[in-house]
Amino acid sequence: MAHSSKKKSDTTKTAGAQTEIDVPMSELLRLPTGPVTLSDYDTRSTRGFPGTKDDAPMITSALGPELSDLQERLFAAGRVDAPDAKRVLVILQGMDTAGKGGVIRHAIGMVDPQGVKIKAFKAPTEEERRHHFLWRIERELPPEGIIGIFDRSQYEDVLTVRVNHLVEESVFSQRYDEINEWEAALVASGITVIKCFLHISKEKQKERLAERLSDPTKFWKYNPGDVDERAKWPAYTEAYQIALERCNTSPAPWYLVPSDRKWYRNWAVARLLTEQLRALDLKWPPPNFDVEEEKRRLAAT
Amino acid sequence: MAHSSKKKSDTTKTAGAQTEIDVPMSELLRLPTGPVTLSDYDTRSTRGFPGTKDDAPMITSALGPELSDLQERLFAAGRVDAPDAKRVLVILQGMDTAGKGGVIRHAIGMVDPQGVKIKAFKAPTEEERRHHFLWRIERELPPEGIIGIFDRSQYEDVLTVRVNHLVEESVFSQRYDEINEWEAALVASGITVIKCFLHISKEKQKERLAERLSDPTKFWKYNPGDVDERAKWPAYTEAYQIALERCNTSPAPWYLVPSDRKWYRNWAVARLLTEQLRALDLKWPPPNFDVEEEKRRLAAT
Repeated sequence: MAHSSKKKSDTTKTAGAQTEIDVPMSELLRLPTGPVTLSDYDTRSTRGFPGTKDDAPMITSALGPELSDLQERLFAAGRVDAPDAKRVLVILQGMDTAGKGGVIRHAIGMVDPQGVKIKAFKAPTEEERRHHFLWRIERELPPEGIIGIFDRSQYEDVLTVRVNHLVEESVFSQRYDEINEWEAALVASGITVIKCFLHISKEKQKERLAERLSDPTKFWKYNPGDVDERAKWPAYTEAYQIALERCNTSPAPWYLVPSDRKWYRNWAVARLLTEQLRALDLKWPPPNFDVEEEKRRLAAT
Repeated sequence: MAHSSKKKSDTTKTAGAQTEIDVPMSELLRLPTGPVTLSDYDTRSTRGFPGTKDDAPMITSALGPELSDLQERLFAAGRVDAPDAKRVLVILQGMDTAGKGGVIRHAIGMVDPQGVKIKAFKAPTEEERRHHFLWRIERELPPEGIIGIFDRSQYEDVLTVRVNHLVEESVFSQRYDEINEWEAALVASGITVIKCFLHISKEKQKERLAERLSDPTKFWKYNPGDVDERAKWPAYTEAYQIALERCNTSPAPWYLVPSDRKWYRNWAVARLLTEQLRALDLKWPPPNFDVEEEKRRLAAT
């Protein structure tokens, strides 16, 4: 809908290969509402990608100029305190090795780092535990004009917490509704929330962990706890399915990003972000000064 | 010195053009100690650049892989709490329009945003004013493994403050020594401090301000106060000359980056950062687990 007026850039071609697509990723990747069975979704899918793996570097970097332009418009409005300044929040969730860090490096890395606020949520501190679970999340929301990136998020409080029985069921079972209400309020206040579930297969996780154990430049990414968590794969799958079903709301829907192929995953998130920024119809802020008068003042110096 | 062992990568060539240089930028751009007369330095210089403007995109992006690799090594050590984990701090100073933001976007934007912590210092708040001037600076130092970027810094407390008579001379005249002691302590604690003065001409500033007034996509970058500040160019020049002279120390020297040409400025800072990271001789952290045991555990899953 919001995309129809941008049909022009949907037909861009670069170096002979098509870099744009017909159906928005916002539609292709949007998780249907209702019960979720993750095994129904192909983790190796490349839905919507207008080429093959070989084209990926070119097709992904072709998103750069528009993504960068949109981000700068967003940033500009925040910088001048424009009344219509927006905020954007990208939430990245997924099993270990799904590629949350890879997405930040390769997709989010395409925009000006000054316009990005990244927060990786770890296990909560003692102080954070004494507060409501959304307290520490709320504090990390991006300011106006900024794209916030959450590497893990409030969803850990219904995922890790559920799988590892960290709080009473009576407590976490209420959290789905609390998250929905909180997210709806965020969106109502002008924040665009883009929730991405990076979907990998259990086999791909094994392969990636094995890589980390066989490559000395990747040892630092490995933690023995990863294998312990992996043993809980079915419990995590169930916890994800429940969260994806119960928190797949109209103001803040879930996008399911097939993530066995890194090049597709990175492009898909960059593309999704580009579409969502486009939909904000971001204008350059008008001058809050008299342009001609300032030209005269400058000329006199 | 620390660079001699890396001679290999100093001879890299890409697509027929030389992308590396003979004399380290750390030497070429290092401000000589002693009294500083800024007019002695050509703001249009492209010292050390191994090509022409047309080669700049290729030559600059050719730095990407090494810079990215070095940053990841730095990050990795911080992530695993390695005993030799380092911190890096890039301080950007310069007149309005010198390009502090442009350097962050184009040079710092070449590395993983997860490994970068950017802080733009504005006029201090009331609370900050009640503290020692280094209080708010100290709080923004990068953690281990992270490259901190200061867009303005403690130097504003001897620049803006001096030019605009914001505090007594008896107070700010002591600050040069305080800054030197503080920076020496930082370096002694394992932080690499890279101080870049982005040097532009008064004419180039006028040209850039005029651009901001004639291009609706740049209005947001313009502030009428910029012309008021411009009127104080001689006072700022003097304040910079004093700061550059008095705080040009051996542990934390100043680099003077000719900045009338954006493509050179961005490359020079990226190159300087690359050299400084190289000099840290960053190793991938060794595993803090039994690799073979973990391989067995993983295989059993």
